Amino acid sequence: MELKVKILRWSAGIPVAMLNEDTANLIGVKTKGRIFIKTLSKNPDGISTIVDIAKTLVRKNEVAVSSELKERLNLSAGQRVDVDLSSTPKSMIFIKKKMNGKVLSQVEVNEIIKDVVDNSLSDAEIALFISSMYEKGMNMKETIYLINAILHSGKTLRLNLKHKLVADKHSIGGIPGNRTTPIIVSICAAAGLVMPKSSSRAITAPAGTADVIETIAKVEFSLKELEKIVKKTGACLIWGGSLEIVPADEKIISIEKMLNIDPEAQLLASIMSKKLASGAKYILIDIPYGKTAKVTRGKALELKKKFEYLGKHFHKILKVVLTRGDEPIGNGIGPVLEIIDIKKVLSCSKDAPQDLRKKSLFLSGELLEMTGKAKKGQGIKMAAQILDSGKALAKFKEIIKAQKGNLNHLKLAKFKKDITAARDSKIVEIDNKKINSLGRITGCPLDKSAGLYLYKHVGGKFQKGEKIITIYTESKTRMRDAIKFYSEQKPIILKNN
Amino acid sequence: MELKVKILRWSAGIPVAMLNEDTANLIGVKTKGRIFIKTLSKNPDGISTIVDIAKTLVRKNEVAVSSELKERLNLSAGQRVDVDLSSTPKSMIFIKKKMNGKVLSQVEVNEIIKDVVDNSLSDAEIALFISSMYEKGMNMKETIYLINAILHSGKTLRLNLKHKLVADKHSIGGIPGNRTTPIIVSICAAAGLVMPKSSSRAITAPAGTADVIETIAKVEFSLKELEKIVKKTGACLIWGGSLEIVPADEKIISIEKMLNIDPEAQLLASIMSKKLASGAKYILIDIPYGKTAKVTRGKALELKKKFEYLGKHFHKILKVVLTRGDEPIGNGIGPVLEIIDIKKVLSCSKDAPQDLRKKSLFLSGELLEMTGKAKKGQGIKMAAQILDSGKALAKFKEIIKAQKGNLNHLKLAKFKKDITAARDSKIVEIDNKKINSLGRITGCPLDKSAGLYLYKHVGGKFQKGEKIITIYTESKTRMRDAIKFYSEQKPIILKNN
Repeated sequence: MELKVKILRWSAGIPVAMLNEDTANLIGVKTKGRIFIKTLSKNPDGISTIVDIAKTLVRKNEVAVSSELKERLNLSAGQRVDVDLSSTPKSMIFIKKKMNGKVLSQVEVNEIIKDVVDNSLSDAEIALFISSMYEKGMNMKETIYLINAILHSGKTLRLNLKHKLVADKHSIGGIPGNRTTPIIVSICAAAGLVMPKSSSRAITAPAGTADVIETIAKVEFSLKELEKIVKKTGACLIWGGSLEIVPADEKIISIEKMLNIDPEAQLLASIMSKKLASGAKYILIDIPYGKTAKVTRGKALELKKKFEYLGKHFHKILKVVLTRGDEPIGNGIGPVLEIIDIKKVLSCSKDAPQDLRKKSLFLSGELLEMTGKAKKGQGIKMAAQILDSGKALAKFKEIIKAQKGNLNHLKLAKFKKDITAARDSKIVEIDNKKINSLGRITGCPLDKSAGLYLYKHVGGKFQKGEKIITIYTESKTRMRDAIKFYSEQKPIILKNN
Repeated sequence: MELKVKILRWSAGIPVAMLNEDTANLIGVKTKGRIFIKTLSKNPDGISTIVDIAKTLVRKNEVAVSSELKERLNLSAGQRVDVDLSSTPKSMIFIKKKMNGKVLSQVEVNEIIKDVVDNSLSDAEIALFISSMYEKGMNMKETIYLINAILHSGKTLRLNLKHKLVADKHSIGGIPGNRTTPIIVSICAAAGLVMPKSSSRAITAPAGTADVIETIAKVEFSLKELEKIVKKTGACLIWGGSLEIVPADEKIISIEKMLNIDPEAQLLASIMSKKLASGAKYILIDIPYGKTAKVTRGKALELKKKFEYLGKHFHKILKVVLTRGDEPIGNGIGPVLEIIDIKKVLSCSKDAPQDLRKKSLFLSGELLEMTGKAKKGQGIKMAAQILDSGKALAKFKEIIKAQKGNLNHLKLAKFKKDITAARDSKIVEIDNKKINSLGRITGCPLDKSAGLYLYKHVGGKFQKGEKIITIYTESKTRMRDAIKFYSEQKPIILKNN
């Protein structure tokens, strides 16, 4: 059916079209259905895309297109195009194949990932792909295909630093306050490693590394700007989402988060494709395990093997370390509270959280040894020297300055409530998941200055009346909700002394 | 986060909201993610809904709402509301339960269906529900729960015809030209049965009953108008989609069609809930089986048992008949071409397709016997008498008139191409699925006057040069595509004589 193009100044980050309800009925397409839009020129160009339906925004003889679709097909307002119900893309056949437990080829995985990026697959179809990976699993070959496909769906960093030691690290999430990245990056860059580190924002946690750094600096840069920062300082601490390095991964992850299922192949592919896109030769992966961590020790060991296999396949020096993830790390939870912890560790302040310092030194030491900067067994020592000498702090300031930030301007939230010990007692357990939920309830990561301050860790003792935790919020309602959650869900379990 | 309400004159048939990209980033929600909108009054009202993201349509301090959402929360423009990232609805826990192969309770199924209707579940989440039903199956108890839940998600017909014989029929689709419904409804209503028949439009076939009737009459009516038509004529032939009788079913089916998976429990629930909503006491279900039909004979027998079980459970007189579905029925395929066949059968024209007449009489006979209108073994005879007497045609005209239509104004498509036999030959096979695809390529159901005319059925003989099929299209492009498909895919297989 021939329709006139209307340009909607509307973007969803993906090519998308909108039809009038009556036109959609005629074509036989429903909301989130798929149409094929074809230009009428001699060499027609076309794309299969998901459609939205409107009652008044679009006329019956029109098809409204997003800015992405306009660019994709080089459309102009008023131009006539042919719009028809689109047949199912070929990739759906491959998704069905996976649903039936068959093994996919590189070509088939590529086709699926291409259609994810092109928006030729709807959210529901991507959900089917995710659930089929979850139900039937993917073997290591398929996982490698997935990594290749995701990697080639986007841009990669070209730092042109052939003779430099480019390194990257990743921690599996789930542990509140586990903000070692800025410290490790500062120490390792001060030691001469190149660390183009991109991180994520929090989706379900109170803060991601990108949210934390954003309290003092910009974190959204183009690939070109990022390359400039890395060339200047040897490192960066930016948000990966702004880079378009792995658009397929971004899209799949957003649906995984919605469904709250996380197939292992996609977890491996997501991490590996980002590390490969960063151009790192040396990759350190930290898997915290524990009762309320994301994974158990058994699962962590399984993942370790797989990461090591993938590291070999992609010719990387890759090391996996398993760390205890039984409780939160550091004192602050929430973007501002966590950057305060980081500053304390970097300035070797007396009240710096020692667990955060220790874990950062351990991981830095591993990277220094892997890259040959430190001799075997000397990594932690070297890291501690760099930290204690003030060189890491200087490097951190340099990176923050390059990201147009500065270390001042830290303000905690308006409302504050101390929770104190009712009697002499001792912490038996701190539940990571419940602490994460409590952090979200305080308003994080939206309210950067909200969050929690934990005074002690498991084993810590309180006298009656001593502070256990302080809750920070920007609104009274959130404070009420947080206190209610704390007393009902008991994220910190105490035993009388 | 507090935002100002903006009313968007925009409707997707479901409650939906739109945020500015920056606001969405702050809240941490992505396109198709879920937000919770809460009014700020003393007794706040709230809803969890799916969000779209715009760059320019909505300002940073605004949340734009669809007309459905405006009505749902009784919102007015400029009003302030609290908008936050919404937690996963409880129903997702039950969907996960099904994914893990567990059996769901009535309460759990109700919760899922309620969230489907409320738009609290995204397309991706509904896809997960569908794939979990497909992967793990649902037992008969769960199927009954599903029917109850879907039935109670919408309105039901209240015809208040206690002493009347209300009957309904359903044919499993997939056979091109299988347009018995208008003939059966006319015969049975002429015999005194009440037949409030609602049908679907085609989604993947060239025509659905609603598309066919729409060539000569209106098919979209409100429940109230429909009750009026049925009271006046004893029957109707309308499009079910306009009635809101089973909104949950509509939504689930639209995603099933997209995914092209059709879990059996949902198939049973979809048909049964519509039949129950129509208020019928007598239900006839026709399952055509065959090599290129939707189901094999084995599967048809399995479905028959399940339908009979459900009929008993819901205290209905329900009969399932298995019919041969090896090839198309009638000569015309496409809305106008099919209504021409129907008119010929109803007017007992000499060139009426006898297979369509025979099947319609058979199914009518079954209904007449089930309801006691005809004695056992006399149903077909009685149906034939009604048809041959002209009473069925008169009833059909009455229904069409009540639906503001008339029998004239039938026009075939502009372009026409006869395909003739290259030599003396005989039809060995006609592939239902390929004929359906060919019909779609001609432009059906969008172009109502496009389609196919089959001159003979399996076993039919041609002399060299005799017409096998005529293709009708409204555009030369479509004709070219259709001829190409015909010669490449060979929907009609001939053997030399």
